[in-house]
Amino acid sequence: MGCVQSFRELCDRPKNTNVRISLPAVCIVWETAMIILFGIFIRYDDDSDPHWIDDRKKTNKSDMENEFYFRYPSFQDVHVMIFVGFGFLMTFLKRYSFGAVGFNFLIAAFGLQWALLMQGWFGSLGPDGKIKIGVESLINADFCVASCLIAYGAVLGKVSAVQLMVMTLFGITLFAVEEHIIIHIIHAKDAGGSMVIHTFGAYYGLSISWMLYRPNLNQSSRLQCSVYHSDVFAMIGTLFLWMFWPSFNSAIADHGDGQHRAAINTYLALASTVVTTVAMSSLFQKHGKLDMVHIQNSTLAGGVAVGTAAEFMLMPYGSLIVGFCCGIISTLGYIYLTPFMEKYLKIQDTCGIHNLHAMPGVIGGIVGAITAAAATESVYGVEGLKETFDFVGDMSPTKQGGYQAAALCVAICFGVGGGILVGCVLRLPIWGDPADDSCFDDEHYWELPQDEESTQPVLQYNNHMRNKDVIETNFNMQQT
Amino acid sequence: MGCVQSFRELCDRPKNTNVRISLPAVCIVWETAMIILFGIFIRYDDDSDPHWIDDRKKTNKSDMENEFYFRYPSFQDVHVMIFVGFGFLMTFLKRYSFGAVGFNFLIAAFGLQWALLMQGWFGSLGPDGKIKIGVESLINADFCVASCLIAYGAVLGKVSAVQLMVMTLFGITLFAVEEHIIIHIIHAKDAGGSMVIHTFGAYYGLSISWMLYRPNLNQSSRLQCSVYHSDVFAMIGTLFLWMFWPSFNSAIADHGDGQHRAAINTYLALASTVVTTVAMSSLFQKHGKLDMVHIQNSTLAGGVAVGTAAEFMLMPYGSLIVGFCCGIISTLGYIYLTPFMEKYLKIQDTCGIHNLHAMPGVIGGIVGAITAAAATESVYGVEGLKETFDFVGDMSPTKQGGYQAAALCVAICFGVGGGILVGCVLRLPIWGDPADDSCFDDEHYWELPQDEESTQPVLQYNNHMRNKDVIETNFNMQQT
Amino acid sequence: MGCVQSFRELCDRPKNTNVRISLPAVCIVWETAMIILFGIFIRYDDDSDPHWIDDRKKTNKSDMENEFYFRYPSFQDVHVMIFVGFGFLMTFLKRYSFGAVGFNFLIAAFGLQWALLMQGWFGSLGPDGKIKIGVESLINADFCVASCLIAYGAVLGKVSAVQLMVMTLFGITLFAVEEHIIIHIIHAKDAGGSMVIHTFGAYYGLSISWMLYRPNLNQSSRLQCSVYHSDVFAMIGTLFLWMFWPSFNSAIADHGDGQHRAAINTYLALASTVVTTVAMSSLFQKHGKLDMVHIQNSTLAGGVAVGTAAEFMLMPYGSLIVGFCCGIISTLGYIYLTPFMEKYLKIQDTCGIHNLHAMPGVIGGIVGAITAAAATESVYGVEGLKETFDFVGDMSPTKQGGYQAAALCVAICFGVGGGILVGCVLRLPIWGDPADDSCFDDEHYWELPQDEESTQPVLQYNNHMRNKDVIETNFNMQQT
Repeated sequence: MGCVQSFRELCDRPKNTNVRISLPAVCIVWETAMIILFGIFIRYDDDSDPHWIDDRKKTNKSDMENEFYFRYPSFQDVHVMIFVGFGFLMTFLKRYSFGAVGFNFLIAAFGLQWALLMQGWFGSLGPDGKIKIGVESLINADFCVASCLIAYGAVLGKVSAVQLMVMTLFGITLFAVEEHIIIHIIHAKDAGGSMVIHTFGAYYGLSISWMLYRPNLNQSSRLQCSVYHSDVFAMIGTLFLWMFWPSFNSAIADHGDGQHRAAINTYLALASTVVTTVAMSSLFQKHGKLDMVHIQNSTLAGGVAVGTAAEFMLMPYGSLIVGFCCGIISTLGYIYLTPFMEKYLKIQDTCGIHNLHAMPGVIGGIVGAITAAAATESVYGVEGLKETFDFVGDMSPTKQGGYQAAALCVAICFGVGGGILVGCVLRLPIWGDPADDSCFDDEHYWELPQDEESTQPVLQYNNHMRNKDVIETNFNMQQT
Repeated sequence: MGCVQSFRELCDRPKNTNVRISLPAVCIVWETAMIILFGIFIRYDDDSDPHWIDDRKKTNKSDMENEFYFRYPSFQDVHVMIFVGFGFLMTFLKRYSFGAVGFNFLIAAFGLQWALLMQGWFGSLGPDGKIKIGVESLINADFCVASCLIAYGAVLGKVSAVQLMVMTLFGITLFAVEEHIIIHIIHAKDAGGSMVIHTFGAYYGLSISWMLYRPNLNQSSRLQCSVYHSDVFAMIGTLFLWMFWPSFNSAIADHGDGQHRAAINTYLALASTVVTTVAMSSLFQKHGKLDMVHIQNSTLAGGVAVGTAAEFMLMPYGSLIVGFCCGIISTLGYIYLTPFMEKYLKIQDTCGIHNLHAMPGVIGGIVGAITAAAATESVYGVEGLKETFDFVGDMSPTKQGGYQAAALCVAICFGVGGGILVGCVLRLPIWGDPADDSCFDDEHYWELPQDEESTQPVLQYNNHMRNKDVIETNFNMQQT
Repeated sequence: MGCVQSFRELCDRPKNTNVRISLPAVCIVWETAMIILFGIFIRYDDDSDPHWIDDRKKTNKSDMENEFYFRYPSFQDVHVMIFVGFGFLMTFLKRYSFGAVGFNFLIAAFGLQWALLMQGWFGSLGPDGKIKIGVESLINADFCVASCLIAYGAVLGKVSAVQLMVMTLFGITLFAVEEHIIIHIIHAKDAGGSMVIHTFGAYYGLSISWMLYRPNLNQSSRLQCSVYHSDVFAMIGTLFLWMFWPSFNSAIADHGDGQHRAAINTYLALASTVVTTVAMSSLFQKHGKLDMVHIQNSTLAGGVAVGTAAEFMLMPYGSLIVGFCCGIISTLGYIYLTPFMEKYLKIQDTCGIHNLHAMPGVIGGIVGAITAAAATESVYGVEGLKETFDFVGDMSPTKQGGYQAAALCVAICFGVGGGILVGCVLRLPIWGDPADDSCFDDEHYWELPQDEESTQPVLQYNNHMRNKDVIETNFNMQQT
């Protein structure tokens, strides 16, 4: 209430983007809550607890078999994807680079703490009521945050930091529940999170964007485009996502052959996506020029789509086929679907996450279901089949396939449902979001350096005008 | 033929840079071929196949001994060098950043698939006619691609995407043959690829550049320079190459001490190269100012030159000496040799790969030969000597030294010969390469954002002109 | 002497920034000395020597237990922090990006060689008078260099490359002595170097900056600010430091649980720092706008402050608390302390290292002392307690706590004392440092590209003026 109050008072124009009270309030209250909850619930797991040294003597494990050495390099790659990958991928806008990389940084750091708790409560709550965390928990927290960063892509430039934090708070809560249902109740497999992360995250973001539809967004169209350097910055994000995607899909896969196979499949799928993306981009532009939007985004679709099946026996050529299709579908999505969705479905998707995460995510879920259903002992080996799918009781590949499909539906439902719900909350007039004519502009939330020309086209334009005026005036004077 | 036809029809000016038909055609046909060939030949190797789980029980190997954990972190570093390192290193040109990072991305993703096949056919084709791939295959594919990216450096800004793909297709084919001869027939060692990758790649690119000599390239000289920010972008490439080079040279070295030693030697060589590069750059510029071109490129020469000897007992001081010399030679190459080559040898080397890869590569081959010839059991240990050089039969260090030297010659011959051959193909008028006055310009192959000032000096210039005209006209009017 | 001579001769204005003789001289002499000293002292350690293969057979160690596989991934992360992290973090200035990333590159590469020798002489000098280096030595060398790069942050833009090299040379020497006293004599633990690296480095830099106080620095104030793109470049540095900090603090921690715990603690501390930094930044700016300076720097304070205690049982909530406080303190430091120090203490701290390294470093030392003093066998386990603190003889946690506190004092004394000492040396008029009105300007030490508009506001301004003049002149002409 106090928050609302203060806003009313501060209001000096229809849209007030001042978050001086609300943002610090949310941050401090939130962080304090985190400290208390961590104090009550979170402890180190066996591999990160000093008792490991005593235990090791009993179990005569070597230090090398500490989970840390199986997962840490992959964790760091995932970590880079979350902060540099997602952050820089969104810097393509002319004047929203601070917001892209800065808010991405904030919600990721903010979200991963809540993710550790939520995932812990649902996943690894011990008999003593404590959550034991280790390197795998950190990876899962990063994964969880990824779904919210994907959602951010849909509303990029149109919301305030406070809205983003609310969005993240609910998003991670929903994610944890959805993940619990898919992984622990339905027993579906989703190592790379095609369904759990990408499908959910994308539909969550798209539904929110639909709820927050801005009819007069074209008033900001002058800023909804890139400049030369901002496109190069975005390529940093693209490349780090692209390069480390094999680590993303293999990070929590089974030790040994599981991680190994997941990395290979992802590597191949991504490679073929790049080739078909370039083909489509060139084919559908006049003069066959390439469009940076496609190169920055569609080239990643393959990684999304092999997420679920990455640790299965998708086979190298299977990975190439998945990538092949995704490159085409995703690029066509940018060319035809995004404008269509904005015009007819009232969904304004700033980064085109529908083409990069939603469609490939769904494809990934389907590919996963098919690959699982087609699994045989001859291909996987007796033990291999059991361990790859963690079969318990009378599970069979066909059944597994059905469960995978069910999981996909769950992900979509949670995404759409949750998005609409959260969208309603975000429509309240208290969050300090920008007016339709001042979207995609860092000016409202960041102290900007003064004398940069190349990023102030409007101002510059006026300058030109002024000069022209001067010239004309003294030109006219001569007539007299 | 159809391709040629369509070009003729489309032709509306002497040089037509429209690749709308040819580029997509090549990409789609190519990717389809890849899928078919992968389906026939490529399978997972033992460490990435689920049968690993059953086998492991027999061989009682621990999960940790899966090849994945020996190589994957190094693989990811190499991967970053290929896509971010090479890509951003070439973004230094004022208006060719999209082409640098984008085409680098395309040919790398395109080439590594072909590399997996070619290297498989020559290297690891099983009795069942299948190629078994694992993480080491991925590293080798990245290495193979590196040689083509080096070659790209010589023709940067002067060729079309289609030409680059043709260049890559042939380049990788030649590489696989050359590598097979050097590694499997001559039995030379080349962990870091000074000969196999750098020497071959550099001479391949230089020969192509020689074949594609443009007498009127100076018409594009206004664009053959950098701007402040583009130089900073290039430093991203430089640093990621520099930092991860120890991983590059140790990625496929022997387990244990081999990888360990290779990393140390490379780390030291690179460190001393930086110091001498700075010294030369300052010494040969007036007022002792440093030149970014040297800092961006010559600082890497040391890594190239210790490639072959990295896993040998080069000794720490040996690595420093190699780096010391390369920093000097490479920098002097940029100052004196590059202009000389352009003027008298008709070789236009955009990125100066002759100074960064060719010369250091040759030095690396020689250093490798000497170090191998000087190997003794006292230094390496009985087993150590055998395992380091994989001696079979009556091989001796002296002999090995000779073979290393022979390998260097093979690399040079393949590079020069192959380059001239491919250069002839690329001279056909069907590839959509830019005219002499429009090189180093993204405009012809990329949809560029409109309102960026700082990257459109020409346009800006015109503006100034226009203003001046207005002023002058109305100035003249007064005379009357 | 010759150096001094040549300077006098070259002098053509009060301040001569020409380092054409001195810089190359220092580099070449230095590198030659390194080669000789490495030849005499440095050898490979057991894990990187080919004899490992023979030894392994005796000790039946597996290849996987080579130190390389425990440390190398962390080493590469640290390496990225040193060269990309520190380098790009300092590119925020409008016209000092070349100097930031270029000189950072030079002094890091220059310093790590000296670090290997100094740390070897004090730490690992064998009975045979040889220093045995392996991957851990490389990590320690990078750590050592980090302290000098921190110091560079305080004098950024106000010194010449020669001064930086002198500063690094002395800095690393002092570091090695200080580290030896803290680690080997006092037996304090400092895995992440809160005291050894950050506290020492920061006070070393601040004292130097105090000695080199420039009363008329405001003459360069036009350049002591950022532009839009330079702030985005700086975020690259921030993020790579932030992401890889868990590797920094865990790189040389104990195998197994030690490294594992250090990574978790750092990950959590950094996350909470981001949240409180954003809160403070927004709260203390008018209109609640965020300031890039805080986001770029204060978000890292948590990593500094958990450095010492990272491998102790700080507990997850403890890490959050540390991060919470540091985010607040560091941000307030930028808002209030930095201006105060410049005005009243005559300390000009370009990057605000006092807020990012000095204060958090001291906090880290205190947290470490408390955590150590509070250690119990029930929390650590019998063996765990011994191994975590390497207790020898009758050491007790309480004692250890006292020693930790003593270590902190040593670090501060060495920093301040050493800085004042070196500051005197750097005040000699022979080093080619820039005049007060030409600080923060790449122009004096780098060949700059010509036609970049956005980075030459001054020049542009003149242009505008010129146009206006033309207009006015011919305007006046009409009057006549």
